[in-house]
Amino acid sequence: MPARLIILGAGSALPTRNNFPTSQILELRDKQYMIDCGEGTQIRMRQMGLKINRLGHIFISHLHGDHCFGLIGLISSFGMLNRTADLYIHGPVGIAALFEPQLQFFCEHIPFKVVFEEFDAGKNKLIFEDRSVEVHSIPLKHRVPCSGFLFREKTKDRHIIREMIDFYQVPIARINLIKKGADFVTEEGKIISNDILTCPPDKTISYAYCSDTAYSEKIIPLIAGVDLLYHEATFAETEQIRAKTTLHSTASQAATIASKAKVEQLILGHFSARYNDQQILLDEAKAIFEPVLLAEDMKIFYL
Amino acid sequence: MPARLIILGAGSALPTRNNFPTSQILELRDKQYMIDCGEGTQIRMRQMGLKINRLGHIFISHLHGDHCFGLIGLISSFGMLNRTADLYIHGPVGIAALFEPQLQFFCEHIPFKVVFEEFDAGKNKLIFEDRSVEVHSIPLKHRVPCSGFLFREKTKDRHIIREMIDFYQVPIARINLIKKGADFVTEEGKIISNDILTCPPDKTISYAYCSDTAYSEKIIPLIAGVDLLYHEATFAETEQIRAKTTLHSTASQAATIASKAKVEQLILGHFSARYNDQQILLDEAKAIFEPVLLAEDMKIFYL
Repeated sequence: MPARLIILGAGSALPTRNNFPTSQILELRDKQYMIDCGEGTQIRMRQMGLKINRLGHIFISHLHGDHCFGLIGLISSFGMLNRTADLYIHGPVGIAALFEPQLQFFCEHIPFKVVFEEFDAGKNKLIFEDRSVEVHSIPLKHRVPCSGFLFREKTKDRHIIREMIDFYQVPIARINLIKKGADFVTEEGKIISNDILTCPPDKTISYAYCSDTAYSEKIIPLIAGVDLLYHEATFAETEQIRAKTTLHSTASQAATIASKAKVEQLILGHFSARYNDQQILLDEAKAIFEPVLLAEDMKIFYL
Repeated sequence: MPARLIILGAGSALPTRNNFPTSQILELRDKQYMIDCGEGTQIRMRQMGLKINRLGHIFISHLHGDHCFGLIGLISSFGMLNRTADLYIHGPVGIAALFEPQLQFFCEHIPFKVVFEEFDAGKNKLIFEDRSVEVHSIPLKHRVPCSGFLFREKTKDRHIIREMIDFYQVPIARINLIKKGADFVTEEGKIISNDILTCPPDKTISYAYCSDTAYSEKIIPLIAGVDLLYHEATFAETEQIRAKTTLHSTASQAATIASKAKVEQLILGHFSARYNDQQILLDEAKAIFEPVLLAEDMKIFYL
């Protein structure tokens, strides 16, 4: 399965006819990671007919409603659908205290555990890892503690060269280690270098999510060279001052960050409700950084 | 403005492609009353382009998520839109304690007051009145304390007969009393009966909302003869047992209540997500009670 990013909501604080508040799902190696969960997230999932039985972790960037008001409904529906796997919610310090009382009341009998894992949104740290991915927090510049997320896929297994494996009579029990890069020692004690037995693994992907944030060059080294950057672009250039006072970014600022960080591809999102059509945001960004696309509710980007 | 009922969400616990969880707005004499506020209520309002600056009161039937998870997002957006009028939320005992902590956190700086008015969902009582309407609670039979609502429009002013007012030289200062039904006493002490000066007022309307509830004949006297009854019809007859165990109604049961209460018009809603098409529910209800319609998200019914 190719990695893909599913946009559930590309809007900002006020929903519009087309854009729900922020939520998205990153699919990677048969796992799903949700990033933010604005109101209506579960509705968008149903509208898309998404199966999300591989979702174990939700990452919340900050405690503004348009990024987390969908949590309670999502969890409640998981309960009705008889989910049994634990659900982990990674969010800034304070998230557990805010949501646990409602969870206890509305979701008392759900057949799975909801586990809050709080992190310090002010620090750049490894906040989660599993076999497939590492997730690092990216401190952003917003009105409340707010963190972006860098998803860095872990190195994949090398591909074995079947003919060489047969030639050197490598036992099946050793194959896994060889896929990880180990050399092979024959019964006669001869060392067969790994690069004779395997060819390089598939490329891994990296994805950085930065929303909500004012223009901040501090994040550049943290996201340098990623395959895909989602950066908020709440406003056009005419609203520069508003962007500054509300600690949001313009599309040009997002593009400037993408350009300075030399990312492969930029996606703009978190659009202010004032733009019925986001073409102006795309145009302004494109003038600075060519490989840029607009997020859109229910759109899927393949990495 | 004619009275009308705007369906924002006609679904039940699990949203579907077409149906959001429960919410609706009753418009009456230039005022708006919201009934229930499931997740996505504010989104539906935006999708419909509804102006809701005449909304002062929200009535919550019970504390299940599909009837109240939209409150926090709605209130939060009202704050961003600089609403200043106080907002009253009428709900079963316990609603304030459940929502106030999140309101304090997420809506700390909103420029209006949110006032919770709790009522006993187990009693049939007048829970609210203003110049236009009385609202009575209707105890329903559900898994948690749950109340329907009877909206009974207050008597309107009588229409003055301009020629008679002129003929008897009624001073302007007396007109309002005469519209309310008072007789007029001339300077000579002659009593002019009100029915010479006025003709009868326009008809008032009554609307009963009953969701969620199992079949309960106890509500019949409370809703007898209303112009419009919205009754939940979560299931078809094949799911009778499920309706019984979950304390919901089938479409036929809703129709039976409507028929026994001799209401003018029935609307079915709160459809289980299992019905892509609710025709079967309509058919089953129609066999028992002819004047029946299906609720539908973003549909408007004129009373």
